[in-house]
Amino acid sequence: MTTVCGEVSTPAETPRGYADHKCGHLIRLHKIEGQVRGVTRMVDDERYCIDILTQIAAITRALQEVALGLLDDHIRHCVHEAVHADPTVAGEAKYAELTTALRRALRL
Amino acid sequence: MTTVCGEVSTPAETPRGYADHKCGHLIRLHKIEGQVRGVTRMVDDERYCIDILTQIAAITRALQEVALGLLDDHIRHCVHEAVHADPTVAGEAKYAELTTALRRALRL
Amino acid sequence: MTTVCGEVSTPAETPRGYADHKCGHLIRLHKIEGQVRGVTRMVDDERYCIDILTQIAAITRALQEVALGLLDDHIRHCVHEAVHADPTVAGEAKYAELTTALRRALRL
Amino acid sequence: MTTVCGEVSTPAETPRGYADHKCGHLIRLHKIEGQVRGVTRMVDDERYCIDILTQIAAITRALQEVALGLLDDHIRHCVHEAVHADPTVAGEAKYAELTTALRRALRL
Repeated sequence: MTTVCGEVSTPAETPRGYADHKCGHLIRLHKIEGQVRGVTRMVDDERYCIDILTQIAAITRALQEVALGLLDDHIRHCVHEAVHADPTVAGEAKYAELTTALRRALRL
Repeated sequence: MTTVCGEVSTPAETPRGYADHKCGHLIRLHKIEGQVRGVTRMVDDERYCIDILTQIAAITRALQEVALGLLDDHIRHCVHEAVHADPTVAGEAKYAELTTALRRALRL
Repeated sequence: MTTVCGEVSTPAETPRGYADHKCGHLIRLHKIEGQVRGVTRMVDDERYCIDILTQIAAITRALQEVALGLLDDHIRHCVHEAVHADPTVAGEAKYAELTTALRRALRL
Repeated sequence: MTTVCGEVSTPAETPRGYADHKCGHLIRLHKIEGQVRGVTRMVDDERYCIDILTQIAAITRALQEVALGLLDDHIRHCVHEAVHADPTVAGEAKYAELTTALRRALRL
């Protein structure tokens, strides 16, 4: 599926928790892809190391912003709905999965 | 300049500290660019949030590996040479610049 | 209140989400306090920088483990209950507060 | 050895790279120890999770500041001197050790 941001899209049958913010995430990711391409060019052109490091720090931060947005949507929608539908089995599984994702995001 | 990794290249007049590892950095960055494109596609296809988060964590880690490699080269070459040539003024400036880069890399 | 881990305690009137894991958190925090004191001693004794850095990295990781445990408990209990009781106002406020805490934990 | 910050101390025979900033590091570490004790008390008193998380984020940041200061001193002194004295063997060993410490500090 190719989302054209700004156009009215046919909703997916089972929309993801981040459906409302999908366009925002896509715009950020396109920008990040361009930034990575920029860093590749900087290395190829043998630009100054410190300037490249500054760019990499900016990309890392931008990626973490996307991760935060997805985590946020995930907790508000997927986890919430699973816990609401079945607190013990499905809900517990979602919580455990979320903890693993948070652990990874915190680099533990 | 377009570096063709594996080919013998004419050395730049003032090669950067990371010149020896340039191809390694370029290969990693190309892979990262592809990974970012993959995440964009995952969001567009409305894949499961947790799977996207796992991918973003992998990209962040790969970017930090490139940053570590550049820091390493920078300390071994640029900082070392500046301090050797002029310990007080140029050397001190390089150290101060490095501290700023480390602070940014440590997210302080 | 002084919790004696292992003893049966009178439950607080409004127990926190982390009440069940309180003793685990306290034990970890006591250990962390000892580790910080150990680092202070290492600096005072002028021990080798790299060994001190290794210790600081271990403490940082241990602190992040406590943070992860608290986040986990918070999402499972406080956020869940607030959303259940009042999805629009109180629930929304809890989600917004959680996003801020996650942003801080991710160092954004 | 117990350093009394502010007093004139007899220099150690082989002062560490961070000798000049020792008092600053000790003051920061004492403050961090107090902050950890504060968090322990907050958990024991069953204070609100989000407030505890904010405190843990502040401690993590303070610890990383100490790490940055030590790294900085280490590069300026220990690494510099080892490379100066013996660029191939001892210098190379110091660089490799520094890379490992940076990798750990970057949580890779």
